[in-house]
Parts: sequence; structure tokens; C-alpha cells
Amino acid sequence: MQNISPEAASEIAAALGPGGVLARDDWGPFLEEWRGRWRGAPSLIAAPASTGEAARLVRLCAARGVAMTPIGGNTGLAGGQMATNGEVLISMHRMNRVRLVDAAGMTMIAEAGVTLAAARDAAEAAGRLFPLSIGSEGSCQIGGVVSTNAGGVNVLRYGNCRDLVLGLEVVLPSGEVWNGLKRLRKDNTGYDLKQLFIGGEGTLGLVAAAALKLFPRPRDKAAAFVSVASPAAAVRLLARAQAASGGGVTSFELMSDAIVSLTLAKIAGTRRPVAQSPWHVLIEFSSGEEDALRPLVERLLADAAEAGEIIDAAIAQNEAQSANFWRIRHSMAEAMRGEGRQAKHDVSVPVADAPAFLDAADAAVARIAPGARVMAFGHLGDGNIHYDILKPEGAKDDALAPVLSAIETAVHDEIARFDGSISAEHGVGLARRDEIARRKAPIEIDMMRRIKAALDPQGIMNPGKML
Amino acid sequence: MQNISPEAASEIAAALGPGGVLARDDWGPFLEEWRGRWRGAPSLIAAPASTGEAARLVRLCAARGVAMTPIGGNTGLAGGQMATNGEVLISMHRMNRVRLVDAAGMTMIAEAGVTLAAARDAAEAAGRLFPLSIGSEGSCQIGGVVSTNAGGVNVLRYGNCRDLVLGLEVVLPSGEVWNGLKRLRKDNTGYDLKQLFIGGEGTLGLVAAAALKLFPRPRDKAAAFVSVASPAAAVRLLARAQAASGGGVTSFELMSDAIVSLTLAKIAGTRRPVAQSPWHVLIEFSSGEEDALRPLVERLLADAAEAGEIIDAAIAQNEAQSANFWRIRHSMAEAMRGEGRQAKHDVSVPVADAPAFLDAADAAVARIAPGARVMAFGHLGDGNIHYDILKPEGAKDDALAPVLSAIETAVHDEIARFDGSISAEHGVGLARRDEIARRKAPIEIDMMRRIKAALDPQGIMNPGKML
Repeated sequence: MQNISPEAASEIAAALGPGGVLARDDWGPFLEEWRGRWRGAPSLIAAPASTGEAARLVRLCAARGVAMTPIGGNTGLAGGQMATNGEVLISMHRMNRVRLVDAAGMTMIAEAGVTLAAARDAAEAAGRLFPLSIGSEGSCQIGGVVSTNAGGVNVLRYGNCRDLVLGLEVVLPSGEVWNGLKRLRKDNTGYDLKQLFIGGEGTLGLVAAAALKLFPRPRDKAAAFVSVASPAAAVRLLARAQAASGGGVTSFELMSDAIVSLTLAKIAGTRRPVAQSPWHVLIEFSSGEEDALRPLVERLLADAAEAGEIIDAAIAQNEAQSANFWRIRHSMAEAMRGEGRQAKHDVSVPVADAPAFLDAADAAVARIAPGARVMAFGHLGDGNIHYDILKPEGAKDDALAPVLSAIETAVHDEIARFDGSISAEHGVGLARRDEIARRKAPIEIDMMRRIKAALDPQGIMNPGKML
Repeated sequence: MQNISPEAASEIAAALGPGGVLARDDWGPFLEEWRGRWRGAPSLIAAPASTGEAARLVRLCAARGVAMTPIGGNTGLAGGQMATNGEVLISMHRMNRVRLVDAAGMTMIAEAGVTLAAARDAAEAAGRLFPLSIGSEGSCQIGGVVSTNAGGVNVLRYGNCRDLVLGLEVVLPSGEVWNGLKRLRKDNTGYDLKQLFIGGEGTLGLVAAAALKLFPRPRDKAAAFVSVASPAAAVRLLARAQAASGGGVTSFELMSDAIVSLTLAKIAGTRRPVAQSPWHVLIEFSSGEEDALRPLVERLLADAAEAGEIIDAAIAQNEAQSANFWRIRHSMAEAMRGEGRQAKHDVSVPVADAPAFLDAADAAVARIAPGARVMAFGHLGDGNIHYDILKPEGAKDDALAPVLSAIETAVHDEIARFDGSISAEHGVGLARRDEIARRKAPIEIDMMRRIKAALDPQGIMNPGKML
């Protein structure tokens, strides 16, 4: 555990001005990872109110070789935001200005501490869409969303966070500020430096602000809840839906019957929209044209039924029905709470390989933990499956404890076989650091280390995370 | 000028096998930049037939500290592909296999030497679209397209080359091979290393193969040639078209009357599709639905006319008319040939700032070179303007020679004022190296140098280019 001297602490307080350093009484929300997996132990919590203050803070830390950890809304799932080792924790919540919304140019500039919901609201107020949407959007902040390259339910249509960032303002580990806040769609004047900070988990610098892409707001939306016999049928339906709508598929969420049935049983007020079947898909379409989608979706589903790709389907007749479809999907994490120790995986494979991966992983899990219940669901359109294993029905809460590690290894072995990713959207942080060190090719870890050493030679930006 | 020893040359020849080292008689096409701006002087030209051969070649060069320059179709516009200083020139043309087309998963893997046209054909044969489209697509190769982050006419809808790359196989400057050929839509397991090689102009490694995104082929297309009073009116029309089509605008090309009229005068068989006006726009839409676009485009243009945004418009009634529209746009570079020494710029600004930039740049050019003819055209949808200055009508071919540098400085000064890019799609290479060193913030050049030193410590991969 690192500690900073009282002199350094008071110098930081002076550099930041009132409110710049948090009193111990206010530390609570910053110490606990929200699921209780890690506990932070910072030596100081600073909250700069501007990029200038953030730069002064980092410069002071750099001069003393003091390590820093940036934190946004503390909603990360990999522990990257935790100051577990006496780092100076830098909370970005006071840097919460939307600096610009350019409706005509379809861009906005938001500071790191703007919540994702506030960024979406600012775009909407200007008649535009900022499409990134994840469960934690009320609390998570732009800086964290950028630093973890957040995904979510609209990736199929609009891409990951990486695809939505045009430019960044970054406080480098030296305390120097890189103004890379360009709002250009094209710029080929050297290495695309911002890409290193996107998904960089705060290990190369402190993201202070981001220039983001906006889109026209869709004028029509349509959602359908569909029964299919297998993941393979779902992949065929995806291809059909993409072709028929010309890329108008916004979300394509696969859900096994096990997780749908568990959710319906656990979450009050939900009801099954279609006939029970081994697998379900929630599809959402969007279009720039009013009233364009209804006939398209009806024709698509009729064609799919005729081709034997689907068993049953319900098209949402109104907002309330669509909300019910999404409530089922969004309640799955909640439905699994109280099911004891679980093996959770956030994996991806090439979309067409998802069915074969699921078969292979299911077989491996059945071998290791007979009777364990596989809950598979997620963004099939991106090849991203949340593959969670629950204890056998009626077993004790810690029934899986002895085999958790064997299950994880087996599932990730299958991912390796399909050249997939063991962290599709949640990142590395503390949770997957050792695992990626084992699984990535040494040459790749070596390149990552070289880049880290090149941009953070003192190793003071979020040390111990990712690498 | 560097030279390699006869021993090294024969070792390379042995490592590559028959055809791996080009005889002097076959060097011709590799020595001359296609517009004659630079001339190469390699010490040897190698053409590996596989990634394994390429790795052996690079390892041999690395062991001796011999510099290398990769070359694809030799269509680059910035000189990055020229071995101007005795480098070993590595031509990728023998690595021309399409390794995989996964129609269901919407991906393909192509080796560096596959021409862009061949890659597009392979996708089309599988019922899919690889959307990257640039003038040189018959000759340019995937490796070069990736290394220069090529843009083109479909960026508005599908993004730059960067947005189309899922993974890369790269021979690193040490000769080690990084297999980053993932075909995943989501992977958050560390720094996104491929981004450094995309647009890296061969300065960090040799791109050997790329995993690329495919898309459904559009089932309907529509093109319109429109007269507008000003670039500002064109920007409003763009916003209207994007909103009405829900992102269905594939191309949005702005053209001044000066360049349209010059093209019509110079290129046989072209004719003006609409009433003459100060500015024109060529818009192309695409859709996944058959027969969806015609009514949409008609309504859009009627609404735009009513709002006073457009003066006249012609919708292509068939493929031939659409081809005539595009022929005008694609013949502009040819039309300017034979107009003597020119000041050419490939710049971008935030889309909404394009009108103000054009006003300011026109005023600056008029001050420096009264009577010079401004030819402004390009991908307004991306904020990317090709801004070319021709000598005054009737003046001598070298009339602009004394002021070329002053014009470039003035145009790029205006770009700096709008926080734009002085090389939107063509890259840096030799052409803009000194200019970016002057114009970029020192901190940015410093970061680029650190990354270069981290991944190519000997400085042997395409030295003297970009940095």
C-alpha cells in the first residue's frame, strides 16, 4: 500500500481549490465495487473540476511518482476503477459539462464526468441520437464508457463506444494535456492515438473529455419476440433480418428458455410473449422513415416462418408491449441474483460460430458440473454471449464453488478454439488480468507492455490493471 | 542511400524461394510514383509468397539493421510506398489469396496483396458487400488500403477502412508474426493494437492479411444530381437526407460549378444533368428493401425544394443515368490534368464548418493568386474537401509556381482555424511529413515517436515516412 505525504496532500488540495479533495466522510461510494468483489483503499480522493485542475493534479502526482486510478460512475464490472493499492483516486464527477452539441454536424463534446444518460438527453434535446445504451447508463460516465469501450444493446447498428468517438482530450501520465478533441470524420495525419485510450482502462492517461458522433433520431421502431428451435436458426434469422432491413436491425438478443423461464418466474409482472421454445430472440429494428417498419417486419417474419426458421413470433403492438419484451431481457441479471455462487462469462465468437460454441461449452459444463443450469443470453448480433452457470436446482448456494475455476477454464478453452474473446465488453481490469496474461500470445502482451512503457514510463497510471 | 551486401541478398533469395526476389528487369513498375512525384531507389525488391516467407525476409533484414518499405498497388498519393533511400522494397502482390469468406458471419479474410476489386468481387460472389470503394480499386491492394486507412465514396454510410477491419496479421519489425486475425465484433481484452497498423503507413510493421467486415448487399439504390445555391444549402440538404433515410445516404458529394463545368468541357460524352448553379451535389442512397427508395427520394427532394434548399434536381431513371452522374464526379481529377502546376489539398473540417472554411479559403486564395481558379469538390458528408487551385484561365502552365507554397500555407492555416485535418484520406508519407511536424502539437508528435520507438526500436520499418 502506497501513501502520500501530508505535504503532497496539502499541495494537491491547494492546486485543486475548494471541493477538489474529498473529506474521508465522503469516501464511502468510491471504496466498494458495486457487487462487493473488490474494495478500494485510496490514499486520497481528488475530484478536479476542470481539465486544467486535472492536469495540475496529475503533474503533482507524477513529480512524486504517486500512482493514480481514475474512476467514473463506479459501475465497471472488471474492477478497473478500484484504487486497491493506495493510489490517488481521481473521480471525474465534477467535470460534468456538455461543452458542445453540434446538431448540424452531428457531433457533441462531453466531459468525462457527464453521465451517459445526460449525454443521451443532451443529444435528444438537439433532435439527435447518441446511441450507446447500457444497463448502467444512469450512473456510468463518459470517461468510463470511453475507457472501457462500452458495448450494450445497440452495437449491431451503431458500433461499440470506439466507433462513436471522434476525438479525445487526455491528461497524459506526465500531466501534459493532449488536445485530441477533433470532430472530424476523416483524419489521416499519423497514428490514431485516441484508439489507445479508448478501452485503455485508464492505464495510459486520464480521459478528460470526448468528441462523440451523433445520429438522426429514428422515426420508427419495431420490436419482435420470437421463438426459435436453436441458436443456428437464430443466426439464419439474423442474416435474413439484416438483409431485409438493409442494416436496420438495432438489437438482436438471443435468450435460452432457461433464462427466460427463470426471469418470468422471478420478476413480478413479466409474462411470456410467445409460445415456449428452446430459444428466443428479441429483435429491434429502427428506421428513419415513419411507419416504414411494420409491413417490413411482418413480411420478414412470415418469410422466416415459411422457411422453418421460427416457431412463433409476437410483434409489439405498442410501446407498452415493447417495454415488456425489453423488461424480460433487462431483468435477467436481477433474476439470477440469489442463485448462489455462479460462473459468469462475457465472451464473443464470430457470429456464425456462436451455435457451435454453445454446444461445445454446454457439453463441457455438463461434464464438470452435472445438473448445473446454463443461462445463455446476450447480443448474438455481435457474437457476444453472456454465458452464466447456476448451481443445480435445489443445491446449496456454494455448490459450484469447488468447480468454478474448472468451469471458467473449460469455457475459455472453447472460446480459444473459436478464436474468440474472453472479455467481449466488460474489459480486463483486475478480473481478467491474469487470465489474459495466460491466454494472449506472448507477442501481444509484449506489444501492450511496450506501449504502456512508452506512454507511462513511470508506470503510475492505474498500475496493476489490465497488464 | 543504403545498400545490402551480396551475401544478404542471396540469403534473402534463398529464404524466399523462386520468384521471391525480383530481377532488375522487373523493377520498373515499382520505381516510379504514378504521378511522377517521387522516384524509388531500392537496394532489392522482394515479393514473399506467404506470411512465413515475409517473416523470414523481415527477420533477415532486422538482423542486419536493413530498412524496409512495403508496397501494394503503388497507387498511394503521399509517397509512403516509395523506397527512396535504398530500402528493401517488399511487394505484397504474391500474397493474393482470399483465405475465407464467411457469408453468414459477414466477414472475410484477405491477404495483403489481394486487390480491392478482387476483395469486393469475392464478397459479391458470396452475396455480400465489401463497401470500400476508391478510384484506384482495380490496382490498390488490401495491405495498402489498410495501411493508409483509405476512405472513398462510401465512408458516410460504412466508415473508413479503419471501421471495416476486424483483425490483422502483421509481421512486426523483428520478423515475429502477430496473429491478430480475429473476426469478432467485440473484444475488450487490452489495447486495440490493430488500430496502430491501420493508417500506420507501414512504419510499425508489415500488414500480411486482414479480417474485414462484410454487409448485406443493398437491394435498391438511387442517385440524384442536385443544384444548390451554396455549400450551406448542401449541408442542410445532407441533414434532411440523413434524417429522412435513417442513415441510408451512401454518398454525398459536393462539386462547385467550376469543376463541373471544366469536367463537362474536357471529358467527352458527359452532359449536364441539371440546371447550372453555383454548386452541385451528387447523392446516392441505398436500402435493403426493393423499390423502397424512389418514393423516399422524390418526397425528400420535393420537401427540400419547398424549403428553398435546392434549385433543381434530377433523379437517375436507370443505371445508365446513374453512371453518367458518377462519371462526372469520377472524371474530375482527369479533367484537371493538363492545367499546369496546381496546389492540391485533401482537407477535412467538421461537416457543419465546411461552408465557412470554403469562404475563408477562397478569400485567401484570391488574395495570393488573383484570377486563380478554385476547384472544390469531395465528400461533404464526411467534411472532406478536395480543394485544388488551377492557374488563371489562359495563364502559363507554371503561373502558380511562385505562390504554390503560399497557397498551401494559407489553406492549411484556415484548416487549423477550424481544427480540421490537412490530410483527410491520402495520408502523410513523404508528401506531408514536414507539414505535420510543423502543425501538430509537439505532444502529439512526441507520442507518435514514442510508439514508433516502442514497436520499431531499430527504426527499420519504412523510415522517413510519416515521422
